Amino acid sequence: MHEDRIRLPALMDKVMTAADAARLFRNGMTVGMSGFTRAGDAKALPLALVERARSEPLALTLITGASLGSDSDGLMANAGVVARRLPFQSDAALRRKINSGEVMFIDQHLSETAEQLRGGSLKPVDIAVIEAVAINADGGIVPTMSVGNSASFAEQAKQVIIEINLSAPLALEGLHDIYLPAQRPDRAPIPLTRTGQRIGTSTIHIDPARIAAIVITDSPDSPSNVLPPDAETQAIAGHIVAFLEAEVAAGRMGPELLPLQAGIGTIANAVLHGLTGSSFRNLSMYSEVLQDSAIALLDSGQLAMASASSITLSASMHERFLRNIERYRDRIVLRPQEISNHPELVKRLGVIALNTALEFDIYGNVNSTHVGGTHMMNGIGGSGDFARNGQLSFFVSKSVAKDGAISSVVPMAPHVDHTEHDVDVLVTEWGLADLRGLAPRERAPLIIERCAHPDYRAQLRAYLDEALPRGGQTPHVLEKAYSWHARYREHGTMRELWQCR
Amino acid sequence: MHEDRIRLPALMDKVMTAADAARLFRNGMTVGMSGFTRAGDAKALPLALVERARSEPLALTLITGASLGSDSDGLMANAGVVARRLPFQSDAALRRKINSGEVMFIDQHLSETAEQLRGGSLKPVDIAVIEAVAINADGGIVPTMSVGNSASFAEQAKQVIIEINLSAPLALEGLHDIYLPAQRPDRAPIPLTRTGQRIGTSTIHIDPARIAAIVITDSPDSPSNVLPPDAETQAIAGHIVAFLEAEVAAGRMGPELLPLQAGIGTIANAVLHGLTGSSFRNLSMYSEVLQDSAIALLDSGQLAMASASSITLSASMHERFLRNIERYRDRIVLRPQEISNHPELVKRLGVIALNTALEFDIYGNVNSTHVGGTHMMNGIGGSGDFARNGQLSFFVSKSVAKDGAISSVVPMAPHVDHTEHDVDVLVTEWGLADLRGLAPRERAPLIIERCAHPDYRAQLRAYLDEALPRGGQTPHVLEKAYSWHARYREHGTMRELWQCR
Repeated sequence: MHEDRIRLPALMDKVMTAADAARLFRNGMTVGMSGFTRAGDAKALPLALVERARSEPLALTLITGASLGSDSDGLMANAGVVARRLPFQSDAALRRKINSGEVMFIDQHLSETAEQLRGGSLKPVDIAVIEAVAINADGGIVPTMSVGNSASFAEQAKQVIIEINLSAPLALEGLHDIYLPAQRPDRAPIPLTRTGQRIGTSTIHIDPARIAAIVITDSPDSPSNVLPPDAETQAIAGHIVAFLEAEVAAGRMGPELLPLQAGIGTIANAVLHGLTGSSFRNLSMYSEVLQDSAIALLDSGQLAMASASSITLSASMHERFLRNIERYRDRIVLRPQEISNHPELVKRLGVIALNTALEFDIYGNVNSTHVGGTHMMNGIGGSGDFARNGQLSFFVSKSVAKDGAISSVVPMAPHVDHTEHDVDVLVTEWGLADLRGLAPRERAPLIIERCAHPDYRAQLRAYLDEALPRGGQTPHVLEKAYSWHARYREHGTMRELWQCR
Repeated sequence: MHEDRIRLPALMDKVMTAADAARLFRNGMTVGMSGFTRAGDAKALPLALVERARSEPLALTLITGASLGSDSDGLMANAGVVARRLPFQSDAALRRKINSGEVMFIDQHLSETAEQLRGGSLKPVDIAVIEAVAINADGGIVPTMSVGNSASFAEQAKQVIIEINLSAPLALEGLHDIYLPAQRPDRAPIPLTRTGQRIGTSTIHIDPARIAAIVITDSPDSPSNVLPPDAETQAIAGHIVAFLEAEVAAGRMGPELLPLQAGIGTIANAVLHGLTGSSFRNLSMYSEVLQDSAIALLDSGQLAMASASSITLSASMHERFLRNIERYRDRIVLRPQEISNHPELVKRLGVIALNTALEFDIYGNVNSTHVGGTHMMNGIGGSGDFARNGQLSFFVSKSVAKDGAISSVVPMAPHVDHTEHDVDVLVTEWGLADLRGLAPRERAPLIIERCAHPDYRAQLRAYLDEALPRGGQTPHVLEKAYSWHARYREHGTMRELWQCR
């Protein structure tokens, strides 16, 4: 069954159960696991570690590409297996442990974890757990639906555990392009100049002697949990398409635009879906994750080339994709997240970055991570990698949440992930604010009138009117800056009383 | 007198007075001027524009490299010549106009202005004013003590005005290395892999037909206004040297360290001075400005190579440098600020970034720009270019200001320029907090106990103790987060009453 997937005979005697492989772990170890936005994560070892933690203490530092699927993060957190977690997560149970202070979560730019491991800013990985399609005769490891940080983990770990997933078709081989920057000072420019260019090898190469265990699995990736487009997300997409059409008309980019990035999630996915009906052709993506919308754009023929670090699809799209891999093979490249998100490449290519905000303020500062300014949602992910270095940086959000009780446009963001310096365009279903070349005092009225929900505009104007006489580059009434958040905490709505009559 | 400096005979008839050259300007134009941290700025045209504005409206968008010298920014602001200003300034009179809302100031990462002009995110430059040592026979313009954005301005402007400064020695020729990225999609990797490498030309090349005027000047650059090291800045330097020695001992870098960057100003200059007494040898700098400390390290032989976009020195060091240029010639390279600060290169080289904070909070967010959260000081400058992409990012500050009435360590930064994601190490005269790999809840006690002034530690602990039970990744008491700033505004001190008994 798995013999055709372990093509280096010397490794056949490393095949064992997940429970046996779990015995390699020691309390306090640092573990690097494959997995990026629910794609390509190890399926068996997380459960085996949970099982082992029933009988003895096993608290690990867990580093991944990004979020895991199969409830692994939650199961491991609840079992006490995860003491420290980076660089991203999106699991409800783990989130509770993070926000209660039981799990230490280090929220990182997704491009940076590999570099921090390489440079010694983080403790080195003891064990890597990598999901693979196969191990080739030369020892090369073929990843599945994501690359993430797997190549860096495998390069650094003392021991490597491979999960061969039989449900991942052999046809995935050749989709990947593995390139890692060298140690300094001998680091060369990354030679990538086109989104679809291959600059590395198709497999992860390590000394096979470091492969300590091989576990056979057969479970597919967890399907994407994004919601279909709705009226608001379609309106957001409409504003962005109109803006990009105007950019083309003004001669600031060609009709093929610049390479597109879109963050994980419902809104970003909907925005890309919005391009399906547009006149744009010969598009390219240089992104971190490909969602259903990317496959739809490949199918419509509008997307010529897509580069990312993972593919996360709904159940039906996943099945369709795996059945037709040959059709996509020469138009998709999967890379290490250090490369898919690398500042050097995002800047060189001039990426158009589309990312989701939890909330933003009247001067253009964006909170992507902290609900109410204090409680972690998922993490910053790659949004900073792309927003800082892209040629155009959009942040999108619905104008209100919780049936209108929360405004996404607030006087002052209570947690800042993206500063005013890195935000070009803000978009809600109500409209779009183009902040390029504007000072804070010019941005505020634009953001209020174009982006805020009409029910909150008078309140925002009142705040601005009170702030302006106090002066400054960025006028504020500091003692009232978070009164909206306090009101929501106390009364369940950000609306002021005079607005609720 | 100036004939040996205008080596293209066809240009001799472009020589005119500054007043005549000022007649080329029209109300509403966008003007790009040379000048970076008081070095290499145009000396005559700013005054001529002020003079012209006495008789007719002349409100310009003024873009520079960074700050200008000779009070030019203030004189132009007071005359109403500057309606819009970017990307940096440090003039008291201009600052007043910015904070009163009379001048629109766009505070930018110094690496990004050139790209925004190239890509059309900013309106194009109508006239460039560039200070030069000479114009060569092939039309090549030799910059003076800074490169800044001059090459980009000259490339884009419809008309170029050259100020030939006779006080700038001819020996400066050859110090510069002019390289600009190409328009996309034909942009290649920037081929720089060593700090001292030359990748471009020694002069700025444009079609001489676009040179509309040449003005002769004879005034030196304004001297640097940094203060000499004092007990606190020496203590800060001591903590950093000890930390770097420990990094070398741990094998995370070699004894030559990684290329150093140091921001403009008194503290950063003092930190570099602190290296003069250290055991480090064969150091290199990849920075935006070279101050007295860099020349001292070149003189001591510890600094092997220094790359920057400008040289800003005290009067005595300036004279010494100009007298001995030959001694420094093969160890200094001056580049466009887009290259000196480029994310691609800062990341590739693994720069150690040393920048100054106005204040930082207990979770590691840094305010570099806004006094009291609202009033602009100077601007973010290059601190974000280096802090985000460097291998190690330090932010330094004295622990208190205004004789102890202001704590530089606060519960929550009221303006965030550098997020928790981009800050590795915080340093005050009291100590150093190494935040690498730590979650926010772990950072807070470390920052309080290592960096805060002892007079403010109890207050900070009290805030943290009140915040922790509220939970979250980054616990806060939002309604009290800025109570320290409010207290200073009202009572002239951040100290709480129970601390003042």
